[in-house]
This record gives sequence, structure tokens and C-alpha cells, in this order.
Amino acid sequence: MALKARALYEFNSENTGEISLKEHEIVSLYSEQDIEGWLEGSNSKGERGLFPASYVEILNNDTASTFNNNSTSEDTYRGSRYANIPTGGFGDASNKTLNQIENLSKTSIISSGFTASSPLAPAQQQQHGYQASQGSDEDWDEDWDDTSTVADEPVVVGGSHQGDFDGNGSSTYSVSTSSMSRSGNAQQAKSSATVSRNLNRFSTFVKSGGEAFVLGEAAGFVKDGDKICVVTGQYGPEWQENPYPFSCTIDDPTKQTKFKGMKSYIAYKLTPTHTQTQVNRRYKHFDWLYARLVEKFPVISVPHIPEKQATGRFEEDFISKRRKGLIWWMNHMTSHPVLSRCDVFQHFLSCNSMDQKSWKQGKRKAEKDEMVGANFFLTISTPSGPPLDLVEVESKIDGFKAFTKKMDDSVVQVNTTTNEFARKQITGFKKEYQKVGQAFNALGQAFEQDQQAYSVGLNQAIAYTGEAYDAIGDYFAEQPRHDVDPLMDLLQLYQGHLANYPDIIHVQKGALNKVKESQKHVEEGKMDARQADGVNERCNIISFATLAEMQHFHQVRVRDFKAQMQQYLTEQIGFFQKITGKLEEALQKYDNA
Amino acid sequence: MALKARALYEFNSENTGEISLKEHEIVSLYSEQDIEGWLEGSNSKGERGLFPASYVEILNNDTASTFNNNSTSEDTYRGSRYANIPTGGFGDASNKTLNQIENLSKTSIISSGFTASSPLAPAQQQQHGYQASQGSDEDWDEDWDDTSTVADEPVVVGGSHQGDFDGNGSSTYSVSTSSMSRSGNAQQAKSSATVSRNLNRFSTFVKSGGEAFVLGEAAGFVKDGDKICVVTGQYGPEWQENPYPFSCTIDDPTKQTKFKGMKSYIAYKLTPTHTQTQVNRRYKHFDWLYARLVEKFPVISVPHIPEKQATGRFEEDFISKRRKGLIWWMNHMTSHPVLSRCDVFQHFLSCNSMDQKSWKQGKRKAEKDEMVGANFFLTISTPSGPPLDLVEVESKIDGFKAFTKKMDDSVVQVNTTTNEFARKQITGFKKEYQKVGQAFNALGQAFEQDQQAYSVGLNQAIAYTGEAYDAIGDYFAEQPRHDVDPLMDLLQLYQGHLANYPDIIHVQKGALNKVKESQKHVEEGKMDARQADGVNERCNIISFATLAEMQHFHQVRVRDFKAQMQQYLTEQIGFFQKITGKLEEALQKYDNA
Repeated sequence: MALKARALYEFNSENTGEISLKEHEIVSLYSEQDIEGWLEGSNSKGERGLFPASYVEILNNDTASTFNNNSTSEDTYRGSRYANIPTGGFGDASNKTLNQIENLSKTSIISSGFTASSPLAPAQQQQHGYQASQGSDEDWDEDWDDTSTVADEPVVVGGSHQGDFDGNGSSTYSVSTSSMSRSGNAQQAKSSATVSRNLNRFSTFVKSGGEAFVLGEAAGFVKDGDKICVVTGQYGPEWQENPYPFSCTIDDPTKQTKFKGMKSYIAYKLTPTHTQTQVNRRYKHFDWLYARLVEKFPVISVPHIPEKQATGRFEEDFISKRRKGLIWWMNHMTSHPVLSRCDVFQHFLSCNSMDQKSWKQGKRKAEKDEMVGANFFLTISTPSGPPLDLVEVESKIDGFKAFTKKMDDSVVQVNTTTNEFARKQITGFKKEYQKVGQAFNALGQAFEQDQQAYSVGLNQAIAYTGEAYDAIGDYFAEQPRHDVDPLMDLLQLYQGHLANYPDIIHVQKGALNKVKESQKHVEEGKMDARQADGVNERCNIISFATLAEMQHFHQVRVRDFKAQMQQYLTEQIGFFQKITGKLEEALQKYDNA
Repeated sequence: MALKARALYEFNSENTGEISLKEHEIVSLYSEQDIEGWLEGSNSKGERGLFPASYVEILNNDTASTFNNNSTSEDTYRGSRYANIPTGGFGDASNKTLNQIENLSKTSIISSGFTASSPLAPAQQQQHGYQASQGSDEDWDEDWDDTSTVADEPVVVGGSHQGDFDGNGSSTYSVSTSSMSRSGNAQQAKSSATVSRNLNRFSTFVKSGGEAFVLGEAAGFVKDGDKICVVTGQYGPEWQENPYPFSCTIDDPTKQTKFKGMKSYIAYKLTPTHTQTQVNRRYKHFDWLYARLVEKFPVISVPHIPEKQATGRFEEDFISKRRKGLIWWMNHMTSHPVLSRCDVFQHFLSCNSMDQKSWKQGKRKAEKDEMVGANFFLTISTPSGPPLDLVEVESKIDGFKAFTKKMDDSVVQVNTTTNEFARKQITGFKKEYQKVGQAFNALGQAFEQDQQAYSVGLNQAIAYTGEAYDAIGDYFAEQPRHDVDPLMDLLQLYQGHLANYPDIIHVQKGALNKVKESQKHVEEGKMDARQADGVNERCNIISFATLAEMQHFHQVRVRDFKAQMQQYLTEQIGFFQKITGKLEEALQKYDNA
């Protein structure tokens, strides 16, 4: 217990297991080995628990180790962020409660830390973070094609299933937690943002690499092609538009087999408009890509891919639903100026599926990308001119935070309501209209007992009316597939985005705090002004990026919701017109009755 | 107990309190006084109970007394028939069970018998039968205008309220039982026909005067103007059409007062097309007229007037509902070739409401009409040519019986279903659409937090969409008034008709049985052929009348249901078009969003 550390910043514990630290406080460490960015120790009050490794300076060691931890923390942060967002999934609901999710997340953080019980080099840690998704080039086929078993798309049942996925002894944390996160549903969404905020409140800024960048610790060579420009647009900072915009269709997937039919999997046919060349991609490819993107972009909301599912993967309904989810996902990917242009996405879209060699090359390159996390900020170029006003930035961020909170609530409300509305149409509404149809049918049958010439026409007309109401009952039951379902798909995509934003906001907030702290330090003579200017400048870059991402969110949101509401209303109008048409047919039968 | 009677016909008891008799069986009587056409006594097996007075010949007295009972039985029959039909009413449901109704009916029969404990002359009995409705000329105003109290429209709460209505000591049986019958609703309708059939199975033929007529005991002078012609039409016997067809509008009633506002009542404004003169009639006038018609026409289904109601008589909803019921009633009255032309109805339609003297004259004349019940059949003139084939008539009657049974069932089903459908629209459907509206509203409000120029249009459009769904919820709640209510009004009118038919069918069946019996009696040498021919001829008249009435029912039914279904569908189409229009308005808001 001779291991000591000094708190560099104040840290207020927010969760069980964490302990609070005052600035300059000396803490005893149980190990200098951080657990996913957290250290365990006891503070001066004798409280024992976890605190962010980046908030302390280890005294019995060289301080570089702290920065070492910082620079690799984006992996574990990503794993954690992903794990704590149960809203990103599309589709079926699970029954997990908030508490279960919280416990799972905590457990995952700690146990995966224990698995990696010796200090890991950055590259190793990176591999650890997405071991299961990434695999190695050698077991690519082995791992990824063994799809006729449940192992392809594991579903978390309890909290201790690690190692179920692959037999090579490496941790499957990220995959298991990602499937965990995707099991979320609308009901959980309500509180998901809070979970995310709570668990990551202090670690996000650290783990995202935001802190390391602001403190000037990120370093790397930025090639021209990697440059990401923020420009000043009509409404403020925005991402520079993709000069070569494209979209990408996802056609009906086909079931494919290999090893003489022993193994089967679903391949989606992707055709990007800028290459006009179809490539086949499997769900695990999407999953791998998603992991790469989350790792790379700290202040960009990467759309969540549709949730995993263990059973019924080859069932038509599920495939169709997943395809719709992937189309939404693809739409958000291609319309994002930064995501759409990044190398790993382009590799995913354009590499010939048959060319194993170039696929592996691209895959390896993406996994070795150094411009991730803290280094991502190095690639951002901001508009020339004065830096952003910090007060204004903070006000915009606070406004956006309030906006996303309120939008999250109303999205949950719309989701719950339309879901219930759909259920009522499929059950109650259908039943009521068909009962009316049956009653008219019964009346028609009673009337048919009178077969006098002048009765026949009426009998037939009433029988037709009965059938019409029966059909209308079916219309009601079928309708939600055409209007409610697409709306809910969109809402779920946005629930994923909304769950991403608390972390993005915290990165920004962390940067702003660092500026304030550095100003204070300068006043106190603890920091020279040049150093503080650097903090300022780097915070300014994060501010530009965050504001650009917010602007992008609003623009896409307005586009998406306008289109979706139009589609919804158009479908509803068509639905009521179809009913009207059926009733008009029935009415006409009485003309000659 | 020395009083004895001999059974003229076999009688099979069908209800508790009745006893079976074999032909020629000698029964002991407890009294020679019949109770609404029933005698009490014990049969040769020692069973004690009721049997039809007309089925026996009293031995210790002159046989004329039996015929006396017969000739006056139409009054009591009418009272009983009316009492046993709880389906004739329009409007509000009561909670009376079938058993309660049965018990009330039984009680009424017996207790009104005890009230009239001495033998009554025919004229007296007739007055007794509709005492309360008829009143006397002297207390016309007194009785009929005292409408500011509940007494105007009594409602039966228990089974022993007789004498509540008027204080002059006369029995109010018919009024109390008619209000009882009008408290029926759709739920009771299901079994009402059965009740009616059971209670009246053997008494109907006797009480209606059908038997007396067939046996040649009816006698009266038929003026030319009283003649009712049955002709042979395209589909068989039918009533000769009214050469001067007319209709009659019923305008919105007004609340009128007299005695300086101390008394108030509702007056309906009737304008028959053939007189073009408006007359004011009150509900009790309709009630009085209805009683006259029921008394007069044994094999014609007199449409039931809307039910009485004790409270809320001046409330707009009730008045409007009653008016609609009266319009339906009037429609059926004016379209019936016989009912529309009869004196009492013409008097009701055309007598100046202000001319008290001529009203009283017409009223007295109607109440003294001798061409009622058995004598009604005397007024019927049948087409020349051979008599109807008895087997064919019986087959048609059986077919009609099956038809009305099946129609009754399906009318109950349509009534129950559409009633429930209306309830669902007013509650559940409305709620679901308005919840969708609220959810969209909430989304719009969340979006309004973003006031960038490109968001405003969408925010407004979503807000409008929320309002549109709120309005659609209201449309659903309002709609049943426009389509379900009129349909239910029609169904209730037909439930009244369907409840009338079992009795009408029994009169016909009784006549056919009498023909069979007389043939047997001729074969056994108990009756001479000429007498049997007379029975045949008179049965033929009843057959013509019954078939004409059946034909009329079918024609009016086809006309009514065709029109009603057209109206229903037209309203439904308009409803869905209104929804479509609202949604189209909402959709347009997105054009500039």
C-alpha cells in the first residue's frame, strides 16, 4: 500500500463504488494498474473505491504511466459507452431492467479489467477492446463464417457469459456488451440517457481522448486526406459538405451457404451510387465497421446498427426488419459529411467481397488507424477567424442538451403511443370492424331466407357490406406495417443518436472546464499563458467539431422527420381512402337492390 | 266447487300455473268469472291452474257465457299481448330481467282480474282495457294535460304500482303494462318473442277474436268505407294500395305551457302531406292512438311508439330521440295500406288541435268502434277466385315464422354489435387517436426548442398534425350519432314488429287448426258440412289478411333496410372522407416545411 497518487482535479463520486477526491488530495492505490481507465484506492477520509486514473498523478512511479492510460482509454470508453446505451437497437424488446443494465455494465468494466490483469500496450488494448469483432486476419474466416450457430449473434442472458463467443480465451466484452446494449427497447430508452450520463459523467471526457487532446498530449501525423474541415455556414459551424455525395441501396438479402451447405449466412447486397458496384456484406461486417467508427470519432454520433438476434435469423420478417434498420443506418452514414468519407466506411462499401486479400488489407489498416480518439481532434481544421466565444458555446451546448432531453422524452412518448396504437389496430380495431361485418353478414343470411325477387338484390348488397367490413378490419390490422413501423424505425434510430449525445456533450463540457481551470491556473501562476493558450485553441477545435455535429443533427432531424411525417400521413390518407373505396363499392351494390 | 266445465278442445299447458286439458275432459271451476280470458280450476288429474276460458264450455250455466267471454277477450288479449312484448320501445334500456317481465305479466293478468271481480259487459270491459289511455271525455284535459308531473309517463319500478296513475279508482293496467313493455331494450329483445309466444300460445287465437270470427260468432254491419281489400299481387295476396298515399312530417317539438306556466308539455308538430295542415300532438295522443290501433287490428303489426320516460322529458337529447322514434313510427303508419287509411289515424292526423269539440267527437267515435278484433275480419274483402291452398298457406306461415326468428336473432346481433361499436368509437377509438395527437404535439413542442429558420415549418406542421389527430378522435366520437343511432332506431322499430308476429302467426295457426278440427268433426258426424264450409271460408279470409300483412312486412323491410344501409354507408364514407380531408390538410403543411 505504499503506492500513492495525487489528485490533479477534483472528482465527485456519483455512483456506488466510486470515491470523491479533492484537488491535490493524496490517495493510496491498491494497484497502479488501471481498470478500464479507473484506479482503485482509498482517499484521505479512508473511503475505498474507484476514481478516474486520469484525474490522478501516480507518485511512486513516473507520471508517463498516467498519460499512457489516458491515451488508450478511448477503447475502454467506447466499450463502456456502447454498453451503457441500451437504446441503440432496433426491433424486439428485452425485459432487462435499468438496474440489470447498470449492474451488467459495472460488472463488465471490472471483470474485463481483471482479464487484462497486466498493463497492456496501446495496440494490445485496442485489440482487446474489440477482440471479438475484430478477430485476427488468420481466424477471419473461422470466426466470421461460422454463422450457422447462435454464436454469430450472441444474446446476453445473464451477466456472466464472457467467453461463450469464441474459444480462444480472449475477452468478448465488447461484443457481449454490444449485444446487451442492442437488446434495449423503447421502454428502457426513457432512462437510458440518464444511465449513460451517470456512469460516464466523469470518465467520458477522459476516455474519449478529449482531455488528452486538450492537454496537448495527442500527437500524430495528419495526412491531407485525413483532414476534416469545419466551415462556418449559414447557421454557424458545420461540417464541410461531402463534395461527392452518394447514397447506397441495400437490396433484399439472400441466404448464402458455404462448406457445401454446412454453414449458412445472410448477405446484404449493397450498391453505393458512387461506385455502382454491388458488394455483399454480412451483419458481422456492419458490426465490425460500427466498432471502428465508434472508436475513431469521439464527438460524432455514430448511428447504431440494428440489434443482434440469436434465433430466427433466417426468418423473413426478421431479415426484412433488419434490412429496413440497415437502410436507415446507411442513410445516416452516407448523409454524414465526415462518416460518409472516412476510409474504413469507404473500404466497407467498395472492397470486392470476393477479394479476400484486399479486404484483409483494408481491415488491418483500419484497425491500425492512429487517428482515433484523441488523435481524431488533430485531423480537424477549423475556419479561419476568431475563436468561438466560450460563453456562447456553453449556452448553445446547454440549449442542445435541453433539446435532446425533451426530444428524447417525446420520442419515447410517440414510440409508446404509436406502438400501442398499432397494437390496438391489429387487435381491437380489427375485431370491432369484423364484428360489425359479421353482424351484417348474419342479417344478410337471415334476409336470404326470403328469396322473393325484390329481396335478392338487398340480400347480396348486405352480404357484400359484411365482407367489406371484414376487409376493413384486415386493413386496420395491416396498416401499422405501412405507417407505424417505419415511424418507429426512425424513432429508434434517433433514440440511438439521443443516447450518444450526453457523452458528446460531456466531452465538450470537459474541454470548456479545462479552459476555465487553465485560466485559474494561470492566475495562480501554476501554468504559463502560452500553455493556457494551447488549451484554449484545442478546446476551440472541439467546440467547432461539437457545434458542427449538433448542426448536422438538427438538419438531418428536420429532413428525416419531415419525410417521415409526410410518409406517415400519406400512408394514413391512402389507408382511409382504401376504406372509403371499399365502402363505396358496398354502397354501389344497393343501387340495383 | 260444484261449478263444472267441459273442455271443447285439447289444451296443453306451456307455462307454470297452466293445466292441460283433453278434449271432452270435465274440469272443476273455482269461479265462472274469467281472468283476462283465463279460467281457474282443476282437471281430472287433480292438477289446479289456469286454462283458456274459450276452450271450455261451462256446464252449470248457459253456454252463452262462454261466448260472452270470447267476444270480449280481444281487449284482454290486447292488454296481455302488449304487456308481454318488451321490445316495442325505443331508447333507454332498463334492467328488468326476463323473469321480472314474466312475473309482472302474470301478476297483471291476475290482479287486473281481481280488480274486475264482477262480470263486466263487453263495453265496460273494453273501457277497462284502456282506461288510462282512453279516460273519459270529461277528464280529458284533467288527465292528459297534467304533464308537469311524472304521472304523465309512468315507469314501472315494481310489480304493484297500479292506481298510481289516476286517482279515480279505475284500473290502470293497460297503461302500467304498456309502460312496462316499453321499458324493454335490445338485450331483452332476444328472448321477448319467446315470452310472447309462450304466454300467448293458446290464448292469442282466442283473445284476438280470431276464433270467434272463424266460428262464425262475429257480427256487425260493415259500411263501405270500412272495407279493407286484399288483392292478388305479383307476389301473392297483398293489401290494396292506398290510392291516395301520403306521408307526414314531424317537426321539432316545442315545449308548451298552460295554466299560466304551471303545467308544461311537449307538442310535436305533425304536417301530413294530404292535408298540408299542421296539427300539434302530444305523446299521450300517440299513446292513445296506438291503443286504439292495437285493439282494432288483430293480424296487423302495429308499430310500437317510442318508450315512455319518467325523467328528463324536457331534455333536448330525449326529445330529439323521441322525435326520431316518432318519425320512424309515422313512416310505418303512413306506408301501411290499412293503418294509414283507418278513421282513428286520420282523425289523429287531421283534427284541429284547437277544436276541442271535434277532437272529442272523433275520440268517442274511435272508442266506440265496433269493427275491432273479431269484427275486423268482417271488413276484409278477399280477391275473387278459388280459396287459398291450406297446405301452401301453412307452409308460408311456417317459413315466415322461421324468417322472423332468424331476423330477430340477427337484428339483436346487429343492435348489440353496433351499440358496442359506437361505444368503442366514443371511448377507445377517440382516446387512441387523441393519444397519437398528443404524442405528435409533444414532439412538435420538443422540436420548437430549436428555432432555427429551417426548423420552424416542420414544427408548425407537426403541431398541426397533432391537432388533426385530436380532431379525428372527436370525429370518431361524434360519428355514431350519424350512422349507428339511426340504424339502431330502425332495428328497434323492427324488433317491435318482430315481437308482434308470433301472435299474428298464432291467430293464423289457430284458424288453420279450426279448419282441421271442423273437417274431423264433419267426418265424425258432429258438424254438418255447411258449417264446416263457413269455418273454411272465414279461415280463408284470415289467411288472406295474414299473407297480405306478411307481404307488406317484407316489402317495407326491403325498402327500409335498403335505405338504412345506404344511409349508413353514405355516412361512413363521409366520415372517412372527412378524416382523409383532415389528414390531407395536415400533409399540406409539410410542403413548405
